[in-house]
Amino acid sequence: MSTEPPKPAARRTRLTPEREAELYEAVLALLREVGYDALTMDAVAARTHSSKATLYRQWNGKPELVAKALRHNKPGGIESIDTGSVRGDFHAMVCQADTEQMEKDTALMRGLGHSVHTNPELHRALREWLIEPELVWLDTLLRRAVDRGELAADNPAIPFVAHMMIGGFLACPLIEDRVPDAGYLSRYIDAVILPALGV
Amino acid sequence: MSTEPPKPAARRTRLTPEREAELYEAVLALLREVGYDALTMDAVAARTHSSKATLYRQWNGKPELVAKALRHNKPGGIESIDTGSVRGDFHAMVCQADTEQMEKDTALMRGLGHSVHTNPELHRALREWLIEPELVWLDTLLRRAVDRGELAADNPAIPFVAHMMIGGFLACPLIEDRVPDAGYLSRYIDAVILPALGV
Repeated sequence: MSTEPPKPAARRTRLTPEREAELYEAVLALLREVGYDALTMDAVAARTHSSKATLYRQWNGKPELVAKALRHNKPGGIESIDTGSVRGDFHAMVCQADTEQMEKDTALMRGLGHSVHTNPELHRALREWLIEPELVWLDTLLRRAVDRGELAADNPAIPFVAHMMIGGFLACPLIEDRVPDAGYLSRYIDAVILPALGV
Repeated sequence: MSTEPPKPAARRTRLTPEREAELYEAVLALLREVGYDALTMDAVAARTHSSKATLYRQWNGKPELVAKALRHNKPGGIESIDTGSVRGDFHAMVCQADTEQMEKDTALMRGLGHSVHTNPELHRALREWLIEPELVWLDTLLRRAVDRGELAADNPAIPFVAHMMIGGFLACPLIEDRVPDAGYLSRYIDAVILPALGV
């Protein structure tokens, strides 16, 4: 946790993508098993047979390591979705999320639990590495819809699209007592998000 | 924690409403301070100068005591809202929630934290004493709107009204990094809930 500049010998060397993926998988497994607070860099080091020095050279600390592991876990290729209609784009996004993936995601959210709210560093890392990139992507999707003339640029629901999506995901377990699946999300898009956008 | 039937001397005696309110306030304060897992019946008994036997006679256990304390905390009178329009009803509900109240509510949600998901008894008590009554009330509000001809009975957003409301509340801190206030909720109702309902 030293804040001195790295010595020449400690210069960051790139991990192979395979090794990086292995480390992220171990972090996610620990997060599901013990939760954020009880997850230690020692445990990550032990489980992945790496040194703590390597972990700290590669990531700034636990918040960044966990946030980047969660980003690694996201189904890839959402950024490349461009079906030509806002309805198509939303549904294409849902198709990428299978039930097994969503159950895993829910277990990870539970692992984060209380810490999201009580740990400002974790909150900041999640914003930077998970939430902001999603918001940028949503913004692109909506701007394309405006450019195509599908959506009015001043539609008052535009600033709330991220709230509707994240909210629909979080409310399902509380109200329906189950993990949201692709069918639920499709119905929610058609019944809530698209009508609110006037599409 | 005995499961024997209560002895005649231990028969439930009604607490005065003032005493009950005092006990609920103590439970909520402990929930904000230490969170659900660390909250013990011993601590409630000590803080309120009551015996654990009294607490267990009055409530079935910690999950029910916490759920009823949370219900006690809700602004009263929501059930009596009937403004004559669905738009008026939603906005009247928001007017009852002041900022101080919402900050307190957010602190309580954080106090529940992880336990909502990992403790089935707490989950069940919250459903029974908090979520179900809200759903019944929403149902009444929406049925009146259908009866007045404001809302189509088969509008596909009707089954998602609770999801939109709870979701909007939960998503705000994550996306905007702040507790929702009455202004936010008013804008959300006008931009999302009413357009989705076609009102």
